[in-house]
Amino acid sequence: MVLEMKIPEEPTLQAAAESAPGVFTYLLSFVYIGIYWNNHHHFFALVRHISGAVLWANLHLLSWLSSLPFTTAWMGESHFARLPVMIYGGDLLMCVIAWFIMQMTVVRAEGPNSVVPTAIGRDLKGKLSPFLYIAGILVSLLSPVLGVAIYTIVAVMWLVPDRRFERHAAALESGG
Amino acid sequence: MVLEMKIPEEPTLQAAAESAPGVFTYLLSFVYIGIYWNNHHHFFALVRHISGAVLWANLHLLSWLSSLPFTTAWMGESHFARLPVMIYGGDLLMCVIAWFIMQMTVVRAEGPNSVVPTAIGRDLKGKLSPFLYIAGILVSLLSPVLGVAIYTIVAVMWLVPDRRFERHAAALESGG
Amino acid sequence: MVLEMKIPEEPTLQAAAESAPGVFTYLLSFVYIGIYWNNHHHFFALVRHISGAVLWANLHLLSWLSSLPFTTAWMGESHFARLPVMIYGGDLLMCVIAWFIMQMTVVRAEGPNSVVPTAIGRDLKGKLSPFLYIAGILVSLLSPVLGVAIYTIVAVMWLVPDRRFERHAAALESGG
Amino acid sequence: MVLEMKIPEEPTLQAAAESAPGVFTYLLSFVYIGIYWNNHHHFFALVRHISGAVLWANLHLLSWLSSLPFTTAWMGESHFARLPVMIYGGDLLMCVIAWFIMQMTVVRAEGPNSVVPTAIGRDLKGKLSPFLYIAGILVSLLSPVLGVAIYTIVAVMWLVPDRRFERHAAALESGG
Repeated sequence: MVLEMKIPEEPTLQAAAESAPGVFTYLLSFVYIGIYWNNHHHFFALVRHISGAVLWANLHLLSWLSSLPFTTAWMGESHFARLPVMIYGGDLLMCVIAWFIMQMTVVRAEGPNSVVPTAIGRDLKGKLSPFLYIAGILVSLLSPVLGVAIYTIVAVMWLVPDRRFERHAAALESGG
Repeated sequence: MVLEMKIPEEPTLQAAAESAPGVFTYLLSFVYIGIYWNNHHHFFALVRHISGAVLWANLHLLSWLSSLPFTTAWMGESHFARLPVMIYGGDLLMCVIAWFIMQMTVVRAEGPNSVVPTAIGRDLKGKLSPFLYIAGILVSLLSPVLGVAIYTIVAVMWLVPDRRFERHAAALESGG
Repeated sequence: MVLEMKIPEEPTLQAAAESAPGVFTYLLSFVYIGIYWNNHHHFFALVRHISGAVLWANLHLLSWLSSLPFTTAWMGESHFARLPVMIYGGDLLMCVIAWFIMQMTVVRAEGPNSVVPTAIGRDLKGKLSPFLYIAGILVSLLSPVLGVAIYTIVAVMWLVPDRRFERHAAALESGG
Repeated sequence: MVLEMKIPEEPTLQAAAESAPGVFTYLLSFVYIGIYWNNHHHFFALVRHISGAVLWANLHLLSWLSSLPFTTAWMGESHFARLPVMIYGGDLLMCVIAWFIMQMTVVRAEGPNSVVPTAIGRDLKGKLSPFLYIAGILVSLLSPVLGVAIYTIVAVMWLVPDRRFERHAAALESGG
């Protein structure tokens, strides 16, 4: 998975400014991929049993994450045109849905004595995100830039590190 | 190995529709690479001895898998023209043949007491696939889209997870 | 993170010569990424505790390192035009700042008994680098080639391997 | 490091035939990278001590290996023009020289009781290769295709797996 960015065609400030939507979109996707990578790392530190279903659920998640470079490029190069912004939001929506499916598959593979369900907890941010993405997609019909703003708010919301998995991983290590 | 996809040139539904063959081909190759990655993971969980021949057989398999991005791009950009569809099928055929060679090399390296030959078992899907690919390649002479349909059927057939290796790996872990 | 280089358009010495700025920039970035990779390897050999903050600080560092392919390509293709040279220097400056932040986060996660602060020591080269980058950026206003020369001097300064972390890692291994 | 290949512009046999030099060059580089990857794997299975110098020697080797995608693309797209063929040979020559430097650095880091020098042995193929590359580069002045043929012969010579390191690794494992 390689995020790409078009470099400005001329070595001028004006050409750099025209690349601004591309640079912003690149950063937004970089942050999203970082969030998933980080939470994935903490989440699987708790997991003791991997089933074939978990591998497939992971691959499913990866398929939506690895579509981000393309939806990112399309949104950036179109300078936030309506359709690409909506499809980008749809990709983010599928990523979070695929994350839920992966979580459920892990919970089933782990069995009843796992620390994972407790670690997931109420998962307010996780439950809120799909509705925000859907809001962003619908708002893009009126104003794509506003849609991008909503996607950005979700990213910022997630940037606050998710200590749930980390705390439980530390507890596991220290024998608790 | 990086699967690439051309993003639509305009931010319109029409341009997105023209990208449909490319998107479909990308997904098909993504699924195929996922299948191989997944089965490879389960298969090598059973393997205890790696010889130089196994490394070379793996590299041989990798060479056909890593050709998929190119045959994929050609098939997608040509909107399922006959020659690229046949060559894509040929690549899939070589992948499955390379998988067989890799399996045989592992069996030889493992020696007589390995669980691997039992885990491979009758391998009906594995034995059927080459014939389906050959059928797809030949059918593409008449109708490339029908050929792509056959390649897709093989992918779906393999998407049903291959529990053979997984079951034996679990048995190994639990001391059986 | 994939550093790319444009290949010459014609198979002639003249076309190859025109690619010289691109090749030089590619090499400079390759060396910088190698320096960070190498020091990162030695540094984390000393680290015993990873917190979520360390993962984020690492991701932050990675974001500036993975921008190098783009700032590299822009600087190379513009044949050392002023603006891209200044932005390239800004990227190098952010890389070294992100390195400092990462170091601080690790020191905090490690706690009081860690060998890390002693290993970091006075860190003269680390403290000098940001000023040299800023000098390079400012000098580029007058002469971009001179700016590139300063960036190159910093790289050469760092190419002298940083034995601090290595020495302490060896000491740790041998029980000291 | 990503080897790339241009896909044919038209879905026709003629366009595919015009891509033949590109495909051949891609395969040749794939085999070379496979050879280095394979021997690197076997070689480092014997290594017990990594110094900073070894990391740098590895990075130096990597810099020449990771130039292969560019020299490959240039040679392939120029349809074996003289200059790119000579530069491709120069890249291969630098790869094998960098391998020697890496080997020497490892031998020094390993100290007197290592199995590595014995495993390297007389290294006839290694000593022959640089001369064959130089021959290929010089021959390309007269006939680039003949130069490519010589590079191919060296690759075939190395494809015969190098059992030296493998044999010693097996001996190490079994306590010998």
